[in-house]
Amino acid sequence: MPGNTFGTFFRLTTFGESHGLSLGGVIDGCPAGLSLSEEDIQQELDKRRPGQGLSTSPRKEGDQVQILSGIFEGQTSGTSIGFVIPNQDQRSKDYDHLRNLYRPGHADYTYKKKYGVRDHRGGGRASARETVCRVVGGAVAQKFLSTLGIQVVAYTRELGGIQAEVISPDQALDRPYFAPDPSVLELWQNKVEEVRKMGDSIGGVVEITAHNVPPGLGEPVFDKLDARLASALMGVGAVKAVEIGAGRDAAELMGSQNNDPLRREGFTQNNAGGILGGISTGQPIVTRATVKPIPSIDLPQQTVNDQGEEITFTTRGRHDVSAIPRIIPVLKAMVSLVLADMLLLQQSAQLNQNSYEL
Amino acid sequence: MPGNTFGTFFRLTTFGESHGLSLGGVIDGCPAGLSLSEEDIQQELDKRRPGQGLSTSPRKEGDQVQILSGIFEGQTSGTSIGFVIPNQDQRSKDYDHLRNLYRPGHADYTYKKKYGVRDHRGGGRASARETVCRVVGGAVAQKFLSTLGIQVVAYTRELGGIQAEVISPDQALDRPYFAPDPSVLELWQNKVEEVRKMGDSIGGVVEITAHNVPPGLGEPVFDKLDARLASALMGVGAVKAVEIGAGRDAAELMGSQNNDPLRREGFTQNNAGGILGGISTGQPIVTRATVKPIPSIDLPQQTVNDQGEEITFTTRGRHDVSAIPRIIPVLKAMVSLVLADMLLLQQSAQLNQNSYEL
Amino acid sequence: MPGNTFGTFFRLTTFGESHGLSLGGVIDGCPAGLSLSEEDIQQELDKRRPGQGLSTSPRKEGDQVQILSGIFEGQTSGTSIGFVIPNQDQRSKDYDHLRNLYRPGHADYTYKKKYGVRDHRGGGRASARETVCRVVGGAVAQKFLSTLGIQVVAYTRELGGIQAEVISPDQALDRPYFAPDPSVLELWQNKVEEVRKMGDSIGGVVEITAHNVPPGLGEPVFDKLDARLASALMGVGAVKAVEIGAGRDAAELMGSQNNDPLRREGFTQNNAGGILGGISTGQPIVTRATVKPIPSIDLPQQTVNDQGEEITFTTRGRHDVSAIPRIIPVLKAMVSLVLADMLLLQQSAQLNQNSYEL
Amino acid sequence: MPGNTFGTFFRLTTFGESHGLSLGGVIDGCPAGLSLSEEDIQQELDKRRPGQGLSTSPRKEGDQVQILSGIFEGQTSGTSIGFVIPNQDQRSKDYDHLRNLYRPGHADYTYKKKYGVRDHRGGGRASARETVCRVVGGAVAQKFLSTLGIQVVAYTRELGGIQAEVISPDQALDRPYFAPDPSVLELWQNKVEEVRKMGDSIGGVVEITAHNVPPGLGEPVFDKLDARLASALMGVGAVKAVEIGAGRDAAELMGSQNNDPLRREGFTQNNAGGILGGISTGQPIVTRATVKPIPSIDLPQQTVNDQGEEITFTTRGRHDVSAIPRIIPVLKAMVSLVLADMLLLQQSAQLNQNSYEL
Repeated sequence: MPGNTFGTFFRLTTFGESHGLSLGGVIDGCPAGLSLSEEDIQQELDKRRPGQGLSTSPRKEGDQVQILSGIFEGQTSGTSIGFVIPNQDQRSKDYDHLRNLYRPGHADYTYKKKYGVRDHRGGGRASARETVCRVVGGAVAQKFLSTLGIQVVAYTRELGGIQAEVISPDQALDRPYFAPDPSVLELWQNKVEEVRKMGDSIGGVVEITAHNVPPGLGEPVFDKLDARLASALMGVGAVKAVEIGAGRDAAELMGSQNNDPLRREGFTQNNAGGILGGISTGQPIVTRATVKPIPSIDLPQQTVNDQGEEITFTTRGRHDVSAIPRIIPVLKAMVSLVLADMLLLQQSAQLNQNSYEL
Repeated sequence: MPGNTFGTFFRLTTFGESHGLSLGGVIDGCPAGLSLSEEDIQQELDKRRPGQGLSTSPRKEGDQVQILSGIFEGQTSGTSIGFVIPNQDQRSKDYDHLRNLYRPGHADYTYKKKYGVRDHRGGGRASARETVCRVVGGAVAQKFLSTLGIQVVAYTRELGGIQAEVISPDQALDRPYFAPDPSVLELWQNKVEEVRKMGDSIGGVVEITAHNVPPGLGEPVFDKLDARLASALMGVGAVKAVEIGAGRDAAELMGSQNNDPLRREGFTQNNAGGILGGISTGQPIVTRATVKPIPSIDLPQQTVNDQGEEITFTTRGRHDVSAIPRIIPVLKAMVSLVLADMLLLQQSAQLNQNSYEL
Repeated sequence: MPGNTFGTFFRLTTFGESHGLSLGGVIDGCPAGLSLSEEDIQQELDKRRPGQGLSTSPRKEGDQVQILSGIFEGQTSGTSIGFVIPNQDQRSKDYDHLRNLYRPGHADYTYKKKYGVRDHRGGGRASARETVCRVVGGAVAQKFLSTLGIQVVAYTRELGGIQAEVISPDQALDRPYFAPDPSVLELWQNKVEEVRKMGDSIGGVVEITAHNVPPGLGEPVFDKLDARLASALMGVGAVKAVEIGAGRDAAELMGSQNNDPLRREGFTQNNAGGILGGISTGQPIVTRATVKPIPSIDLPQQTVNDQGEEITFTTRGRHDVSAIPRIIPVLKAMVSLVLADMLLLQQSAQLNQNSYEL
Repeated sequence: MPGNTFGTFFRLTTFGESHGLSLGGVIDGCPAGLSLSEEDIQQELDKRRPGQGLSTSPRKEGDQVQILSGIFEGQTSGTSIGFVIPNQDQRSKDYDHLRNLYRPGHADYTYKKKYGVRDHRGGGRASARETVCRVVGGAVAQKFLSTLGIQVVAYTRELGGIQAEVISPDQALDRPYFAPDPSVLELWQNKVEEVRKMGDSIGGVVEITAHNVPPGLGEPVFDKLDARLASALMGVGAVKAVEIGAGRDAAELMGSQNNDPLRREGFTQNNAGGILGGISTGQPIVTRATVKPIPSIDLPQQTVNDQGEEITFTTRGRHDVSAIPRIIPVLKAMVSLVLADMLLLQQSAQLNQNSYEL
């Protein structure tokens, strides 16, 4: 039954509900000797905070991570890294009207069916709040990856049906909506305001790319790098599609177009998204995640309660127009966690690597 | 390093290369008391045989599975099920010209980078031949699922850019290209012939749906049902995108459109693809996999050899125009394996299920 | 690399060092619907507190557990249970003289070799303090087991070479040294005082038995119940031998003596320790762990520092004469965790168990 | 439910019953580039063959391993290694009288309780025949270990209550009963003959030591090297106790005796058995397994059948007087598998190991 652990070797285990005392987790398998501080992690957490883009809700979160173990004199010691992020805002009473009601598009119905019991307060474990722990784990993974020169970048490719060009992705995290092209911002802003007035919500597409990934990562047959990335991204709430490289468009290409030619200096295009046969090629790893419109809207919706009575229901209170951009640091974290895991798994691929001389 | 095992509880471990003595594997965790014969498995294997659709190569395979253990007097005994599928056609000499060459779009380059050594004969472990073992595992999973009334159906949604309606999906496996609508067949046939004459190849989209899946399957947070399905499908060679329910289209929907209303008799639409919060709702599970055009084509391609010399290379000999339809039984098998695993994981979700009284 | 997770299905992941802010962990896989409170856990923790037996050190610990998630309105909700136990006493300065020194019988040398870095304060992660988290996990497991009528009992069989009869094991936890026979107490007390005056330490043997375990638990071939128990007990610091049933004595028995006859009313003896072929028989599960004398003693010992200089070293300050009895709640916890895991794994052994009707 | 896989990284999955077509398995995670042939494995298998010691049955087995994949031009390729060992002697009819009967000391009763069905022919999956697959996996592990200079040695320490000195353990595998001292052979031979005439059976103690193991192997807290070894050895049928270093005797030692002093040239004794805090010290790893007398004896025994009827039963036909020495290559294989796994796990312990430069 346990689904709260991610990764084989570089491993994140998390806990926490929307309205409990605290969220937190354990990072296991991070190599010893990595410089690591709470500040390294807090930086990433802050990117997930509301106010990074104008579509987000006015609620202040300001999550603060506290590391409880695994670091000795500024470096990882090889032992497991425990952390907590206290919940600050726990107005559980706000949720009493949801106790017996299944919100459309949420996990209320399925948790009840699965467990027989359901924490109705803010979605409980199914709340997007659980993703703060993913960001913590991802931040540690990124610190590790950075020592090898690997860099993971994420940005919005499409919002409410409006696509953006990828002009300056490295600066995306400093722009509203984490936009890879400043020229799209006004269009997106207008779209968001229009939808907000309608009381509705929108989705989009996020692209995550990893640079300087060495060739050789990924484990055939069932733990291919693309399989692991697909699981990592699809497992984030709201994601309904995952693409690698050419992705969905590959269905319309001919083989002669889709194959990436290989020259002395390397591949001349990247439809493969940096992965062939489930193993990294050394080109940038390119993934995309489709994010559905968030289900909480200010419009009447049809549902039932746990007695089977039909109800018309409108979400009250604060909520975002889109899971973008707050989902972006989460998706970036997931890609980072996969790469860290795959790097460690790769240490034993060949006999004559000198690492066996301990 | 080991990536040759799939599943936690209902578990498939496989081995075998394109040109070794035999492929095979071990199925572990299948409950005792299931009626099972080689014929049950052979049926599924035969659907993967060439000649199921006109786009496939004339090469005869006729894979024959042999069960070596785990069945006692016609029923599973609870112990691990070993099986082999002997390789019949092993003309290794055919491949000598590939020994030092990296075929574009294949895993030749990445295997060499990963392992330092590469079996160049027909792709070795990276050959699509490994998928016969997935079909065997999937067949056992399907037999198990069928005892609970669960049915997994698969068919082609798009081939070479031409989409099909889903008219009679249950009969798809009896039609060329596993088409869900007979009226599309002539278009597809013409497209395939045209591409074959050009010496090129095409891809498409396969849809796999599972019916009568009980609500409650899937393990939050990291082993969600959709995460597991995404990994299962993306891990099949040639797949570049995975979608659940509305999938890629969800990016363009509004929340009010995308949310599936819930009425007394159930959900009134299925954009969720039968999964909310990573847990099955009881509606049909709907997944789609984008299949890239197969990389082996009769056209000159640019590549290098392992000395870094640039080469123009043309694939010689027999090959298919598309991985569709032969990939379809494989994708169906993967969905079946995920569902079987998730069903077993679900046995322990609630304390008051009477299964604890052993 | 990650070794901080125990169990497959009922799973405990822990973190924390002797002198960090807090120890803690995550319990994953506990079925939903179990009544559980902090008090249930605190009870078990208190049994590990000093003062349970006279051999223990005068230091007060009074560990207090705090549950952070996974319980909703007094019942487990099926989601992961996070917990912390704050460290109260963190006089790190006390340990400065140990920074570069390898204490004999401790893990100082091996942690340094493994990780290149070592937290020298009180043993860091290798301190027996980590076992508080095992007791927390075990307490939850025991609560679960108790709903099925399973009871785990633990007591001292031998202390400093003096054996005890098993007269009233159920009351052992209320006696000094968790003695199963009150008549041995004076002998043990005298032995402990004698050793304390010498500045030396002693070991012993602990027996853990589980009653009302249903037949059928344990997974052939590699996850046999006895294999799992052996791993669970040997993995507790200070344990150097593990026995099941007749254990070490089985080497001197004849087959005709060792075989347990089976009659209509059940087995007539229990040399098997309740396990045949790695699967529980329904008889009491009987295990024993040999506990070595604790390595910290008030006598000069020969060792080296990390420069390779030879040193004569005497442990300063507070310490126990024996790991018994404080290790007993830990060993009991480990057996409980194994049984809970094996119970959940057993849910899927047979097809016709009615649990599949979700 | 699946218990047929051993190891995390260097992983063995097996299948096969006493009377099926074939036993076999999959070895996953063996690094690429290791020279490996069927002959390397056959050598180890031959040591398990009857006739290695006079206590063994006259039945000829002559198991022949066939490697089906994973080796390319004499070297491991990094892909999974499939193998089979055909069953030659399948006189199933011999076992009809056992169909409904629970043999004392065997797993008949527990398999029936666990699975509801039982392959009664020669013990089915619970037969000691399954251990041939362990020996195959262990042989590959040993080949890998030997490239690093690690050597695993195993011999009989005690047989039927008669102990042997460890004089020349390296030659033990060439002597009857794998005796570490030739002078004990006559005593053992007399004991075995005496027991054979009585129709009874005996057990003993096997010692397995590993030399040149580097320090640093073993994963705190739950995957300690000693925990893994304990699981590996206890999981072999007939083993009832496992000891590390001083083992059971540690209960009677004082701390001042038990602690191994550390000098510039290394440790001056080895009560720790080469493991401190669950991590290897660099000294020889010393483990012992107590082997119970085999349950099949030529004497009447009391049991029941599956209708609950009481029966007096005598084992007919061929069988050994002791599981020693045939169990010895199996125990040696298990230690080798653990060490190979732990070596691979250790590759990622430290950040500055140069293996990250792929």
